[in-house]
Amino acid sequence: MVERVAERLRALEDREAIRDLIARYGPLADRGDAAGVAALFAQDAVYAVGGMGEAHGREAIAALIEGPVHRALIADGCAHVLTSPAIDLAGDRATARCHSVVFRKEGEGWQAVRVSANRWELARAGKGWQVTRRDNRLLDGSDAAQALLGNSAP
Amino acid sequence: MVERVAERLRALEDREAIRDLIARYGPLADRGDAAGVAALFAQDAVYAVGGMGEAHGREAIAALIEGPVHRALIADGCAHVLTSPAIDLAGDRATARCHSVVFRKEGEGWQAVRVSANRWELARAGKGWQVTRRDNRLLDGSDAAQALLGNSAP
Amino acid sequence: MVERVAERLRALEDREAIRDLIARYGPLADRGDAAGVAALFAQDAVYAVGGMGEAHGREAIAALIEGPVHRALIADGCAHVLTSPAIDLAGDRATARCHSVVFRKEGEGWQAVRVSANRWELARAGKGWQVTRRDNRLLDGSDAAQALLGNSAP
Repeated sequence: MVERVAERLRALEDREAIRDLIARYGPLADRGDAAGVAALFAQDAVYAVGGMGEAHGREAIAALIEGPVHRALIADGCAHVLTSPAIDLAGDRATARCHSVVFRKEGEGWQAVRVSANRWELARAGKGWQVTRRDNRLLDGSDAAQALLGNSAP
Repeated sequence: MVERVAERLRALEDREAIRDLIARYGPLADRGDAAGVAALFAQDAVYAVGGMGEAHGREAIAALIEGPVHRALIADGCAHVLTSPAIDLAGDRATARCHSVVFRKEGEGWQAVRVSANRWELARAGKGWQVTRRDNRLLDGSDAAQALLGNSAP
Repeated sequence: MVERVAERLRALEDREAIRDLIARYGPLADRGDAAGVAALFAQDAVYAVGGMGEAHGREAIAALIEGPVHRALIADGCAHVLTSPAIDLAGDRATARCHSVVFRKEGEGWQAVRVSANRWELARAGKGWQVTRRDNRLLDGSDAAQALLGNSAP
Protein backbone atom coordinates (compact mmCIF):
# COMPACT_ATOMS: atom_id res chain seq x y z
CA MET A 1 0.00 0.00 0.00
CA VAL A 2 2.76 2.44 0.97
CA GLU A 3 4.71 1.53 -2.15
CA ARG A 4 1.64 2.05 -4.29
CA VAL A 5 1.13 5.49 -2.75
CA ALA A 6 4.74 6.43 -3.48
CA GLU A 7 4.32 5.34 -7.08
CA ARG A 8 1.14 7.37 -7.55
CA LEU A 9 2.75 10.40 -5.96
CA ARG A 10 5.74 10.11 -8.23
CA ALA A 11 3.58 9.94 -11.34
CA LEU A 12 1.79 13.13 -10.28
CA GLU A 13 5.08 14.84 -9.47
CA ASP A 14 6.53 13.80 -12.82
CA ARG A 15 3.59 15.26 -14.70
CA GLU A 16 3.79 18.43 -12.63
CA ALA A 17 7.54 18.75 -13.31
CA ILE A 18 7.07 18.28 -17.06
CA ARG A 19 4.22 20.79 -17.20
CA ASP A 20 6.32 23.26 -15.23
CA LEU A 21 9.35 22.76 -17.48
CA ILE A 22 7.28 23.54 -20.58
CA ALA A 23 5.63 26.53 -18.85
CA ARG A 24 9.10 28.02 -18.27
CA TYR A 25 10.06 28.05 -21.95
CA GLY A 26 7.92 31.04 -22.99
CA PRO A 27 8.95 33.49 -20.25
CA LEU A 28 12.63 32.59 -20.76
CA ALA A 29 12.38 32.99 -24.55
CA ASP A 30 10.56 36.32 -24.26
CA ARG A 31 13.32 37.84 -22.18
CA GLY A 32 16.08 36.42 -24.36
CA ASP A 33 17.55 34.31 -21.55
CA ALA A 34 19.61 31.99 -23.75
CA ALA A 35 21.29 30.12 -20.88
CA GLY A 36 17.94 29.64 -19.15
CA VAL A 37 16.32 28.24 -22.31
CA ALA A 38 19.31 25.95 -22.97
CA ALA A 39 19.16 24.60 -19.40
CA LEU A 40 15.68 23.19 -20.05
CA PHE A 41 17.26 20.87 -22.63
CA ALA A 42 19.66 17.93 -22.24
CA GLN A 43 23.26 18.60 -23.28
CA ASP A 44 22.77 16.78 -26.62
CA ALA A 45 19.13 17.67 -27.21
CA VAL A 46 17.68 18.51 -30.62
CA TYR A 47 15.31 21.42 -31.22
CA ALA A 48 13.76 21.33 -34.68
CA VAL A 49 12.08 24.67 -35.41
CA GLY A 50 9.54 24.64 -38.23
CA GLY A 51 10.89 26.54 -41.21
CA MET A 52 14.18 27.37 -39.48
CA GLY A 53 16.23 24.14 -39.35
CA GLU A 54 17.48 22.09 -36.41
CA ALA A 55 19.63 23.11 -33.47
CA HIS A 56 21.76 20.29 -32.03
CA GLY A 57 22.93 20.64 -28.44
CA ARG A 58 22.61 23.33 -25.78
CA GLU A 59 25.02 25.75 -27.44
CA ALA A 60 23.14 25.71 -30.72
CA ILE A 61 19.84 26.15 -28.87
CA ALA A 62 21.25 29.12 -26.95
CA ALA A 63 22.48 30.57 -30.26
CA LEU A 64 18.89 30.57 -31.59
CA ILE A 65 17.82 32.78 -28.68
CA GLU A 66 20.83 35.06 -29.14
CA GLY A 67 20.46 35.26 -32.92
CA PRO A 68 19.21 38.24 -34.93
CA VAL A 69 15.74 36.80 -35.71
CA HIS A 70 14.92 36.24 -32.06
CA ARG A 71 16.50 39.56 -30.98
CA ALA A 72 14.39 41.47 -33.50
CA LEU A 73 11.27 39.74 -32.20
CA ILE A 74 12.07 40.77 -28.62
CA ALA A 75 12.81 44.36 -29.66
CA ASP A 76 9.40 44.64 -31.35
CA GLY A 77 7.61 43.03 -28.37
CA CYS A 78 6.72 39.36 -28.37
CA ALA A 79 5.11 36.56 -26.39
CA HIS A 80 5.86 32.86 -26.78
CA VAL A 81 2.54 31.46 -25.61
CA LEU A 82 2.46 27.70 -24.96
CA THR A 83 -0.58 25.67 -23.99
CA SER A 84 -0.73 23.17 -21.14
CA PRO A 85 0.54 19.89 -22.67
CA ALA A 86 -1.04 16.45 -23.00
CA ILE A 87 1.58 14.23 -21.37
CA ASP A 88 2.31 10.52 -21.91
CA LEU A 89 4.54 9.16 -19.13
CA ALA A 90 6.54 5.96 -19.60
CA GLY A 91 8.84 5.50 -16.61
CA ASP A 92 11.90 7.69 -17.07
CA ARG A 93 10.78 8.96 -20.48
CA ALA A 94 7.81 11.03 -21.54
CA THR A 95 6.22 12.66 -24.55
CA ALA A 96 4.19 15.85 -24.42
CA ARG A 97 2.15 17.63 -27.08
CA CYS A 98 0.99 21.23 -27.08
CA HIS A 99 0.50 24.32 -29.23
CA SER A 100 2.69 27.37 -29.34
CA VAL A 101 1.70 30.80 -30.61
CA VAL A 102 4.22 33.60 -31.11
CA PHE A 103 2.62 37.04 -30.89
CA ARG A 104 4.51 40.03 -32.27
CA LYS A 105 3.63 43.66 -31.61
CA GLU A 106 2.58 45.36 -34.84
CA GLY A 107 1.02 48.82 -34.73
CA GLU A 108 -1.62 49.04 -32.02
CA GLY A 109 -2.00 45.32 -31.43
CA TRP A 110 -0.27 41.98 -31.62
CA GLN A 111 -0.27 39.52 -34.53
CA ALA A 112 0.06 35.72 -34.33
CA VAL A 113 3.13 35.32 -36.54
CA ARG A 114 3.79 31.65 -35.76
CA VAL A 115 1.17 29.05 -34.74
CA SER A 116 2.74 25.63 -34.29
CA ALA A 117 2.27 22.04 -33.21
CA ASN A 118 4.88 20.89 -30.69
CA ARG A 119 6.00 17.43 -29.67
CA TRP A 120 8.43 17.18 -26.77
CA GLU A 121 10.48 14.14 -25.80
CA LEU A 122 11.68 14.27 -22.22
CA ALA A 123 13.88 12.18 -19.94
CA ARG A 124 14.30 12.03 -16.18
CA ALA A 125 17.57 13.71 -15.17
CA GLY A 126 18.50 13.55 -11.49
CA LYS A 127 15.58 14.96 -9.48
CA GLY A 128 14.02 16.68 -12.45
CA TRP A 129 13.33 16.31 -16.16
CA GLN A 130 14.99 17.58 -19.32
CA VAL A 131 13.87 17.98 -22.91
CA THR A 132 15.77 15.58 -25.17
CA ARG A 133 13.97 16.64 -28.37
CA ARG A 134 11.46 19.31 -29.34
CA ASP A 135 9.81 19.34 -32.74
CA ASN A 136 7.96 22.51 -33.66
CA ARG A 137 6.10 22.72 -36.97
CA LEU A 138 3.93 25.50 -38.36
CA LEU A 139 0.22 24.68 -38.59
CA ASP A 140 -0.06 25.97 -42.16
CA GLY A 141 -2.06 23.15 -43.71
CA SER A 142 0.92 20.88 -44.42
CA ASP A 143 0.82 17.26 -43.31
CA ALA A 144 4.05 17.53 -41.31
CA ALA A 145 2.59 19.47 -38.40
CA GLN A 146 -0.44 17.20 -38.15
CA ALA A 147 1.81 14.16 -37.91
CA LEU A 148 3.44 15.63 -34.80
CA LEU A 149 0.09 15.74 -33.02
CA GLY A 150 -0.45 11.98 -33.21
CA ASN A 151 -0.56 9.65 -30.24
CA SER A 152 2.58 7.58 -30.81
CA ALA A 153 4.39 6.55 -27.63
CA PRO A 154 7.89 7.90 -26.91
CA MET B 1 -4.77 8.51 7.83
CA VAL B 2 -4.07 6.05 4.99
CA GLU B 3 -7.65 6.43 3.76
CA ARG B 4 -7.33 10.19 3.83
CA VAL B 5 -4.10 9.99 1.78
CA ALA B 6 -5.82 7.80 -0.80
CA GLU B 7 -8.67 10.28 -1.06
CA ARG B 8 -6.32 13.23 -1.55
CA LEU B 9 -4.34 11.32 -4.16
CA ARG B 10 -7.49 10.43 -6.02
CA ALA B 11 -8.65 14.05 -6.11
CA LEU B 12 -5.30 15.10 -7.58
CA GLU B 13 -5.39 12.27 -10.11
CA ASP B 14 -8.95 13.15 -11.10
CA ARG B 15 -7.99 16.77 -11.74
CA GLU B 16 -4.94 15.67 -13.68
CA ALA B 17 -7.01 13.27 -15.80
CA ILE B 18 -9.59 15.93 -16.59
CA ARG B 19 -6.94 18.50 -17.51
CA ASP B 20 -5.24 15.92 -19.72
CA LEU B 21 -8.51 14.97 -21.43
CA ILE B 22 -9.19 18.59 -22.34
CA ALA B 23 -5.56 19.09 -23.46
CA ARG B 24 -6.02 16.26 -25.96
CA TYR B 25 -8.96 17.84 -27.75
CA GLY B 26 -6.99 20.47 -29.69
CA PRO B 27 -4.27 18.23 -31.15
CA LEU B 28 -6.88 15.63 -32.17
CA ALA B 29 -9.12 18.28 -33.78
CA ASP B 30 -6.20 19.87 -35.65
CA ARG B 31 -5.28 16.61 -37.31
CA GLY B 32 -8.86 15.70 -38.13
CA ASP B 33 -8.83 12.57 -35.98
CA ALA B 34 -12.61 12.13 -35.76
CA ALA B 35 -12.49 8.81 -33.88
CA GLY B 36 -9.98 10.22 -31.39
CA VAL B 37 -12.11 13.30 -30.72
CA ALA B 38 -15.27 11.18 -30.35
CA ALA B 39 -13.54 8.88 -27.85
CA LEU B 40 -13.07 11.80 -25.44
CA PHE B 41 -16.87 11.97 -25.16
CA ALA B 42 -19.37 9.56 -23.61
CA GLN B 43 -21.46 7.55 -26.09
CA ASP B 44 -24.49 9.80 -25.59
CA ALA B 45 -22.65 13.07 -25.00
CA VAL B 46 -23.81 16.44 -26.32
CA TYR B 47 -21.47 18.96 -27.95
CA ALA B 48 -23.13 22.33 -28.48
CA VAL B 49 -20.95 24.45 -30.77
CA GLY B 50 -21.69 28.17 -30.72
CA GLY B 51 -23.32 29.24 -33.97
CA MET B 52 -23.27 25.73 -35.42
CA GLY B 53 -25.93 23.72 -33.56
CA GLU B 54 -25.68 20.65 -31.34
CA ALA B 55 -24.12 17.27 -32.00
CA HIS B 56 -25.75 14.41 -30.08
CA GLY B 57 -23.67 11.28 -29.52
CA ARG B 58 -20.25 10.15 -30.63
CA GLU B 59 -21.19 9.60 -34.27
CA ALA B 60 -22.52 13.13 -34.65
CA ILE B 61 -19.44 14.53 -32.92
CA ALA B 62 -17.16 12.57 -35.26
CA ALA B 63 -19.21 13.90 -38.19
CA LEU B 64 -18.38 17.48 -37.16
CA ILE B 65 -14.68 16.71 -37.45
CA GLU B 66 -15.17 14.95 -40.79
CA GLY B 67 -17.47 17.65 -42.18
CA PRO B 68 -16.56 20.22 -44.86
CA VAL B 69 -16.23 23.20 -42.48
CA HIS B 70 -13.65 21.46 -40.32
CA ARG B 71 -11.85 19.93 -43.34
CA ALA B 72 -11.48 23.37 -44.93
CA LEU B 73 -10.05 24.73 -41.69
CA ILE B 74 -7.43 21.97 -41.56
CA ALA B 75 -6.53 22.47 -45.22
CA ASP B 76 -5.87 26.18 -44.62
CA GLY B 77 -3.87 25.48 -41.45
CA CYS B 78 -5.48 25.74 -38.03
CA ALA B 79 -4.89 25.41 -34.31
CA HIS B 80 -7.57 24.66 -31.71
CA VAL B 81 -5.93 26.31 -28.70
CA LEU B 82 -7.54 25.54 -25.32
CA THR B 83 -6.55 27.03 -21.99
CA SER B 84 -5.92 25.04 -18.82
CA PRO B 85 -9.38 24.67 -17.21
CA ALA B 86 -10.74 25.70 -13.82
CA ILE B 87 -12.13 22.42 -12.49
CA ASP B 88 -14.90 21.78 -9.95
CA LEU B 89 -14.85 18.17 -8.77
CA ALA B 90 -17.88 16.57 -7.14
CA GLY B 91 -17.23 12.86 -6.64
CA ASP B 92 -17.81 11.07 -9.92
CA ARG B 93 -18.87 14.22 -11.75
CA ALA B 94 -17.01 17.40 -12.58
CA THR B 95 -17.39 20.70 -14.37
CA ALA B 96 -14.56 22.53 -16.10
CA ARG B 97 -14.39 25.98 -17.67
CA CYS B 98 -11.85 27.27 -20.15
CA HIS B 99 -11.36 29.35 -23.27
CA SER B 100 -10.81 28.10 -26.77
CA VAL B 101 -9.31 30.05 -29.64
CA VAL B 102 -9.31 28.77 -33.22
CA PHE B 103 -6.49 30.23 -35.29
CA ARG B 104 -6.69 30.00 -39.08
CA LYS B 105 -3.82 30.66 -41.45
CA GLU B 106 -4.56 33.71 -43.60
CA GLY B 107 -1.82 35.20 -45.75
CA GLU B 108 1.43 35.55 -43.80
CA GLY B 109 -0.06 35.03 -40.35
CA TRP B 110 -2.89 33.46 -38.40
CA GLN B 111 -6.20 35.02 -37.45
CA ALA B 112 -8.32 34.23 -34.39
CA VAL B 113 -11.53 33.23 -36.17
CA ARG B 114 -13.34 31.80 -33.12
CA VAL B 115 -12.82 32.87 -29.49
CA SER B 116 -15.17 30.99 -27.18
CA ALA B 117 -16.19 30.26 -23.62
CA ASN B 118 -16.37 26.54 -22.86
CA ARG B 119 -18.14 24.65 -20.10
CA TRP B 120 -17.46 20.94 -19.86
CA GLU B 121 -19.48 18.39 -17.87
CA LEU B 122 -17.55 15.22 -17.16
CA ALA B 123 -18.21 11.87 -15.54
CA ARG B 124 -15.95 9.15 -14.21
CA ALA B 125 -15.91 6.19 -16.62
CA GLY B 126 -13.92 3.14 -15.53
CA LYS B 127 -10.41 4.25 -14.68
CA GLY B 128 -10.72 7.53 -16.55
CA TRP B 129 -13.10 10.36 -17.31
CA GLN B 130 -15.34 11.24 -20.24
CA VAL B 131 -17.02 14.41 -21.42
CA THR B 132 -20.80 14.12 -21.09
CA ARG B 133 -21.53 17.64 -22.38
CA ARG B 134 -19.50 20.47 -23.85
CA ASP B 135 -20.99 23.89 -24.43
CA ASN B 136 -18.96 26.24 -26.60
CA ARG B 137 -20.21 29.79 -27.20
CA LEU B 138 -18.56 32.64 -29.07
CA LEU B 139 -17.40 35.54 -26.90
CA ASP B 140 -18.99 38.14 -29.16
CA GLY B 141 -20.64 40.36 -26.55
CA SER B 142 -23.79 38.26 -26.22
CA ASP B 143 -25.00 37.22 -22.77
CA ALA B 144 -25.03 33.51 -23.64
CA ALA B 145 -21.27 33.01 -23.54
CA GLN B 146 -20.91 34.89 -20.28
CA ALA B 147 -23.51 32.70 -18.64
CA LEU B 148 -21.35 29.65 -19.41
CA LEU B 149 -18.49 31.08 -17.41
CA GLY B 150 -20.45 31.19 -14.14
CA ASN B 151 -19.68 29.09 -11.08
CA SER B 152 -22.71 26.83 -10.94
CA ALA B 153 -22.00 23.30 -9.68
CA PRO B 154 -22.42 20.32 -12.01
CA MET C 1 7.58 8.15 5.71
CA VAL C 2 3.99 9.15 6.40
CA GLU C 3 5.08 12.69 7.16
CA ARG C 4 7.05 12.81 3.93
CA VAL C 5 3.99 11.62 1.98
CA ALA C 6 1.86 14.31 3.59
CA GLU C 7 4.43 16.94 2.65
CA ARG C 8 4.60 15.81 -0.98
CA LEU C 9 0.82 15.71 -1.21
CA ARG C 10 0.57 19.21 0.17
CA ALA C 11 3.07 20.56 -2.36
CA LEU C 12 1.03 19.04 -5.20
CA GLU C 13 -2.20 20.39 -3.74
CA ASP C 14 -0.67 23.84 -3.33
CA ARG C 15 0.44 23.92 -6.95
CA GLU C 16 -2.98 22.70 -8.06
CA ALA C 17 -4.74 25.35 -5.98
CA ILE C 18 -2.54 28.13 -7.37
CA ARG C 19 -3.03 26.96 -10.96
CA ASP C 20 -6.78 26.77 -10.38
CA LEU C 21 -6.89 30.25 -8.82
CA ILE C 22 -5.18 31.75 -11.86
CA ALA C 23 -7.41 29.75 -14.24
CA ARG C 24 -10.46 31.36 -12.61
CA TYR C 25 -9.38 34.93 -13.33
CA GLY C 26 -10.19 34.95 -17.07
CA PRO C 27 -13.73 33.53 -16.92
CA LEU C 28 -14.60 35.87 -14.02
CA ALA C 29 -13.16 38.91 -15.85
CA ASP C 30 -14.96 38.05 -19.09
CA ARG C 31 -18.34 38.01 -17.40
CA GLY C 32 -17.67 41.18 -15.43
CA ASP C 33 -17.94 39.44 -12.05
CA ALA C 34 -16.22 42.13 -10.00
CA ALA C 35 -16.83 40.47 -6.61
CA GLY C 36 -15.58 37.15 -7.95
CA VAL C 37 -12.40 38.70 -9.33
CA ALA C 38 -11.78 40.63 -6.10
CA ALA C 39 -12.19 37.47 -4.01
CA LEU C 40 -9.17 35.92 -5.74
CA PHE C 41 -7.06 38.66 -4.16
CA ALA C 42 -6.13 39.33 -0.52
CA GLN C 43 -7.92 42.26 1.12
CA ASP C 44 -4.88 44.55 0.74
CA ALA C 45 -3.55 43.10 -2.55
CA VAL C 46 -2.04 45.23 -5.31
CA TYR C 47 -2.89 44.74 -8.98
CA ALA C 48 -0.57 46.72 -11.26
CA VAL C 49 -2.01 46.77 -14.78
CA GLY C 50 0.44 47.70 -17.52
CA GLY C 51 -0.40 51.13 -18.91
CA MET C 52 -3.35 51.59 -16.55
CA GLY C 53 -1.91 52.25 -13.08
CA GLU C 54 -2.21 50.30 -9.84
CA ALA C 55 -5.29 49.15 -7.95
CA HIS C 56 -4.76 48.85 -4.18
CA GLY C 57 -7.13 46.56 -2.30
CA ARG C 58 -10.16 44.50 -3.23
CA GLU C 59 -12.47 47.47 -3.71
CA ALA C 60 -10.14 49.13 -6.19
CA ILE C 61 -9.68 45.82 -8.03
CA ALA C 62 -13.44 45.36 -8.24
CA ALA C 63 -13.73 48.92 -9.54
CA LEU C 64 -11.44 48.05 -12.48
CA ILE C 65 -13.87 45.31 -13.53
CA GLU C 66 -16.86 47.59 -13.08
CA GLY C 67 -15.23 50.53 -14.85
CA PRO C 68 -16.06 51.85 -18.35
CA VAL C 69 -12.96 50.43 -20.08
CA HIS C 70 -13.69 46.88 -18.94
CA ARG C 71 -17.45 47.24 -19.57
CA ALA C 72 -16.82 48.35 -23.15
CA LEU C 73 -14.54 45.37 -23.70
CA ILE C 74 -17.25 42.97 -22.48
CA ALA C 75 -19.89 44.65 -24.63
CA ASP C 76 -17.75 44.20 -27.75
CA GLY C 77 -16.93 40.57 -26.86
CA CYS C 78 -13.69 39.66 -25.13
CA ALA C 79 -11.62 36.82 -23.72
CA HIS C 80 -8.98 37.14 -21.01
CA VAL C 81 -6.81 34.17 -21.96
CA LEU C 82 -4.17 33.16 -19.40
CA THR C 83 -1.56 30.47 -19.82
CA SER C 84 -0.80 27.76 -17.28
CA PRO C 85 1.76 29.33 -14.91
CA ALA C 86 5.28 28.35 -13.93
CA ILE C 87 5.03 28.19 -10.13
CA ASP C 88 7.75 28.63 -7.48
CA LEU C 89 6.53 27.43 -4.10
CA ALA C 90 8.23 28.54 -0.88
CA GLY C 91 6.19 27.31 2.08
CA ASP C 92 3.24 29.63 2.61
CA ARG C 93 4.27 31.96 -0.21
CA ALA C 94 4.56 31.42 -3.94
CA THR C 95 5.36 33.22 -7.16
CA ALA C 96 3.83 32.36 -10.52
CA ARG C 97 4.60 33.61 -14.02
CA CYS C 98 2.39 33.39 -17.08
CA HIS C 99 1.19 35.23 -20.16
CA SER C 100 -2.17 36.88 -20.65
CA VAL C 101 -3.76 37.77 -23.96
CA VAL C 102 -6.91 39.89 -24.20
CA PHE C 103 -8.87 39.21 -27.39
CA ARG C 104 -11.48 41.74 -28.51
CA LYS C 105 -14.11 41.12 -31.16
CA GLU C 106 -13.52 43.40 -34.15
CA GLY C 107 -15.47 42.83 -37.37
CA GLU C 108 -15.51 39.16 -38.31
CA GLY C 109 -12.73 38.04 -35.98
CA TRP C 110 -10.93 38.79 -32.75
CA GLN C 111 -7.82 40.91 -32.26
CA ALA C 112 -5.16 40.48 -29.58
CA VAL C 113 -5.38 43.96 -28.05
CA ARG C 114 -3.22 43.27 -24.97
CA VAL C 115 -0.42 40.69 -24.74
CA SER C 116 1.27 40.81 -21.34
CA ALA C 117 3.78 39.25 -18.98
CA ASN C 118 2.32 38.48 -15.56
CA ARG C 119 3.99 37.88 -12.21
CA TRP C 120 1.79 36.78 -9.34
CA GLU C 121 2.71 36.77 -5.66
CA LEU C 122 0.51 34.49 -3.61
CA ALA C 123 0.07 33.59 0.04
CA ARG C 124 -1.62 30.71 1.81
CA ALA C 125 -4.90 31.86 3.34
CA GLY C 126 -6.81 29.32 5.44
CA LYS C 127 -7.32 26.22 3.30
CA GLY C 128 -6.62 27.99 0.05
CA TRP C 129 -4.43 30.62 -1.55
CA GLN C 130 -4.85 34.29 -2.38
CA VAL C 131 -3.09 36.68 -4.72
CA THR C 132 -1.21 39.33 -2.74
CA ARG C 133 0.21 41.12 -5.80
CA ARG C 134 -0.21 40.82 -9.56
CA ASP C 135 2.01 42.70 -11.96
CA ASN C 136 0.86 42.81 -15.56
CA ARG C 137 3.01 44.54 -18.18
CA LEU C 138 2.52 44.80 -21.93
CA LEU C 139 5.05 42.85 -24.03
CA ASP C 140 5.70 45.79 -26.34
CA GLY C 141 9.48 45.65 -26.51
CA SER C 142 10.08 47.62 -23.30
CA ASP C 143 12.45 46.24 -20.66
CA ALA C 144 9.83 46.40 -17.90
CA ALA C 145 7.81 43.40 -19.05
CA GLN C 146 10.90 41.28 -19.57
CA ALA C 147 12.05 41.98 -16.02
CA LEU C 148 8.79 40.47 -14.72
CA LEU C 149 9.57 37.17 -16.39
CA GLY C 150 12.80 36.60 -14.45
CA ASN C 151 13.35 33.83 -11.94
CA SER C 152 13.65 35.82 -8.72
CA ALA C 153 12.25 34.06 -5.66
CA PRO C 154 9.22 35.49 -3.85
